[in-house]
Amino acid sequence: MAVALLSIGTELTRGEIVDTNAAWLAATLTEEGFDVACAQVVGDEHEHIVATLQRLGAEQRIVIVTGGLGPTSDDITTACAAQAAKVDLVLDESALLSIRRKVEAKGRLVTKHHEKQAEIPRGAEILPNADGTAPGYSIAIDSARFFFLPGVPREMKRMFKEQVLPRIRPIAPNDTYVVRLRTFGLPESTAAQLLEDIELENISLAYRVHFPELDVKVRAKGANLAAARELATQAAAVVRERLGDVVYGEGDDSLPSITGRALRLRGWRLALAESCTGGLISHLVTSYPGASDFLIGSAVVYANSAKTRMLGVSEDTLRGHGAVSAEVAAEMAQGARRLCEVDVGLSVTGIAGPSGGSSAKPVGLVYWAVAHPGGTFVQERVFRGDRNEIQIHAAYSALDLLRRVASGLPEGSQPPVSQRPPPR
Amino acid sequence: MAVALLSIGTELTRGEIVDTNAAWLAATLTEEGFDVACAQVVGDEHEHIVATLQRLGAEQRIVIVTGGLGPTSDDITTACAAQAAKVDLVLDESALLSIRRKVEAKGRLVTKHHEKQAEIPRGAEILPNADGTAPGYSIAIDSARFFFLPGVPREMKRMFKEQVLPRIRPIAPNDTYVVRLRTFGLPESTAAQLLEDIELENISLAYRVHFPELDVKVRAKGANLAAARELATQAAAVVRERLGDVVYGEGDDSLPSITGRALRLRGWRLALAESCTGGLISHLVTSYPGASDFLIGSAVVYANSAKTRMLGVSEDTLRGHGAVSAEVAAEMAQGARRLCEVDVGLSVTGIAGPSGGSSAKPVGLVYWAVAHPGGTFVQERVFRGDRNEIQIHAAYSALDLLRRVASGLPEGSQPPVSQRPPPR
Repeated sequence: MAVALLSIGTELTRGEIVDTNAAWLAATLTEEGFDVACAQVVGDEHEHIVATLQRLGAEQRIVIVTGGLGPTSDDITTACAAQAAKVDLVLDESALLSIRRKVEAKGRLVTKHHEKQAEIPRGAEILPNADGTAPGYSIAIDSARFFFLPGVPREMKRMFKEQVLPRIRPIAPNDTYVVRLRTFGLPESTAAQLLEDIELENISLAYRVHFPELDVKVRAKGANLAAARELATQAAAVVRERLGDVVYGEGDDSLPSITGRALRLRGWRLALAESCTGGLISHLVTSYPGASDFLIGSAVVYANSAKTRMLGVSEDTLRGHGAVSAEVAAEMAQGARRLCEVDVGLSVTGIAGPSGGSSAKPVGLVYWAVAHPGGTFVQERVFRGDRNEIQIHAAYSALDLLRRVASGLPEGSQPPVSQRPPPR
Repeated sequence: MAVALLSIGTELTRGEIVDTNAAWLAATLTEEGFDVACAQVVGDEHEHIVATLQRLGAEQRIVIVTGGLGPTSDDITTACAAQAAKVDLVLDESALLSIRRKVEAKGRLVTKHHEKQAEIPRGAEILPNADGTAPGYSIAIDSARFFFLPGVPREMKRMFKEQVLPRIRPIAPNDTYVVRLRTFGLPESTAAQLLEDIELENISLAYRVHFPELDVKVRAKGANLAAARELATQAAAVVRERLGDVVYGEGDDSLPSITGRALRLRGWRLALAESCTGGLISHLVTSYPGASDFLIGSAVVYANSAKTRMLGVSEDTLRGHGAVSAEVAAEMAQGARRLCEVDVGLSVTGIAGPSGGSSAKPVGLVYWAVAHPGGTFVQERVFRGDRNEIQIHAAYSALDLLRRVASGLPEGSQPPVSQRPPPR
C-alpha cells in the first residue's frame, strides 16, 4: 500500500530547516510495510497548497500532511484543506474545550489565535494532540484519506504513532522485516565483496554509510511478519559470520554503548587521555546513561605541559619522540590508568589539522593506545578528511580497540578502518 | 523567479537518509533571491519519475533534479528524462572520454556500467562533474529548463555552484539580503516581544531555534542587492541594540568560536573541569582550529575520586555539600586553574539524568563556575529535557558565562537561558 507525504511551510522551501519529519515518517512507514510513493514540500501559499492537495487526492490513497496547523496568520493548511475538500470550516467544540484547558493551565489567556485552531473542515475526524494545542484531523479529499498533523516533530511523531498508525495499519501488507547490522572498520566496497555471492531467497542487502560506520541492512519478505522476521534473522546470522567481528551490534546499538557494555561485563573501570580528539571520546561515552558505572575520569591534555602535569608523560619522551608518537600514546594511556587507579586507560594523540602537519608527521596521523592488565597496545593510522572527520575517525578507532580488548577479541593489528568521510 | 526541486531515490522514500540536498539547494536558492515553489521526493520507479518530470515541466520554469545518475541498475533518472523530453539517448563522446580518464586514473577498468553514465538525452547540454564520474546535464522538458545533478552531496553542491548558478543567476531578482544574528539565553517569545513594535520598511524578522540557541534573521528587500544589504545591516544594528548582549555573533559565528576569540584577545589560557557534561565543552571548544592557542587541558571528573585526585576538590566539601553543589563547582574551577597553571578555569557539575535525582537535587540541576583573576563566579539552574538536552544546555550556559567574563560583559546573575529543547 503506497502512502504520499506532504510537508507545508516556507521555512522548508527556504531551506531554513531540514525536513526531518518526512524522513522519520518514511522510515516509520517503511518499517510498517508501507511504500512511500513520494514526499513533497510546499511553502505557505494558499493556491499552491490547494492544488497540491487536490492532485494528491486524485492520485493517491493515503496522504500524511504535516505543518501549518498553528495559531499564526501564516498557518493556512486547514483553510486549504477545507477548500480542497469543498467543505466549509466549523468550530469543533470539544477541540476548543481542550485548547482552552491547555492554554489556561499555562496561566495564559485564550485568544482568537488559539480559537482558530479549533476550526476544522466539516466532516473531518479530530486527532487529539497530547503534547500541544493544535489538534490534527483526518478527512477524505477525492479518492484519498488525508491525515493532517502539526509540524512540531515531537507532537507529530506521537500523533502519528497513536492516532494515524492504528487507523492505517490494518491495510499494510506487514510482510517485511529488517535487521540492521552495525559495523565499524570495513569499507562499503569490501563489505559488498564479502557478501557478493550470498544467495538468499526473498532477502535483499543494503549498505548505508553513517560516517565513520557502515550499516548492513538485511531485509526479508515473508508470507507474514513472523515469517519475514524468521527469514531476516537467519540471513543476518549468515552475514554476521561472513563479516566477522567488525559487526559490533544490531539495531540501536552504538559503538560507545557496546564498548561500555563490554567494560561493565568485565568489571573494568576506565580512564581516558585525549589529545587531538579533545574530549570527543569522553563525550561519546558519557552520552549514554550509566557511563558512571565504569568511567572514572578523563584528562584532555591539549598542551604538552598538561600531558606532563596531568598524566606524568615524561619530558624526555615528548622531546625525543614528539607529542604525536606511539611512545607518548602509550605513556598517556598508562598515565591515565595510574592517575585514576583503574583497570584500563585509553589514549589518543594525533594531528587533527588543518595545520600542524609535516612531511614526517602529516595532518591525520593519529596514535591510540590501550593500557590494561595484559600490557599496553598501540595502533597508528593516517586518516584523511577535515579536522572534524579526523577527530571522529580517531575517536571511533580508539573505542573499537577498547571494545576488542574488553571483549577478548583480536586487536586487529591494523584494522582496515576507512569509511569514506561524508561528502560535503 | 520560482524554482522547483526534485530528489530521486528509494533511499529517500524509505527514510534511510534525510534529504539534506533539498534543504541545501533551498537555502542557497533563497540566498540568491529565488523562491523555491516546491520540493519533491520520488523513489526509483520509472513511470512515477516520468510522470513527475512531465508535470513539473508543464507547471514550472526551472527545475533542479538530484539523484539517480550513477552506474547501477537502479539509477534510471536519465532514461526517464529522455522519455519525458520525448528524445532518445545518445552516447556523448566527450563525457565518455572524461569518465574513462577518471576511472583509469584510479587504476580500474572501464565497464559498461561506467559507459552508461555517458549516455544523455539527445539535445541535452553536459554539465561537467569535477568531483565524480557521472556528468550532469541540462535539457528542456515542456516549458521548463531542467538541470540534472548527481545525488552525492559534494558533487551536487560543486556542480550547482559552478554550472547551474551561473546559468540561472541572470534571471534572479537579486534584491534580498539576510543578516543572521546568533543569540543564546533568550526564549523565542521574549525575543519576539522585545522586537514586536520595531517598524522597519521592507524588513522582515524571522526566528529559528537551533537548540539551545536562537537565530534572529533580519531579511531586507531593496532595489538591488547593495541596497538590500545596506538596509539589512542598518536593521540588524537596531535589533542588536534591543536584544543586548545575548547576541553573541552573526552568520557563521558559534558560541565556542566567539568564546575562544574573547579568550585569545584577552591573552587568557583556559582549563576545563567537567562532570555532568562529560567532555562536551572540551569537544565543542576543540572542534575549532586554533583551540590550542588558549586551551591547555581539561579534566573530565566523572567519579568523586577523580574530582579529588585530579582537581584537589576537598573530601569535606564533597561530603558536606554533595558533588552537585555550588561549593564543588567553585573548587573544580579553581582546581582546574591551579592544575594547569592558567588564567581561567571553567567547571560544570550537575545531574544529567535520567536517574540520580532527588527532591532536593532534581535531575537537571546544574552548577557552573568560572575561576579567574577577579574571583570565582558560580551560576545555578535546573534544566528540563532529556540527558543530552541537559548536557547541551549546561555546556552552552557555562561557555556563555565564560564569554561574558572574558569579554568584560555583566555575568547576568541568572541569565534567562531557556530555549525549549528540540521536540522529538
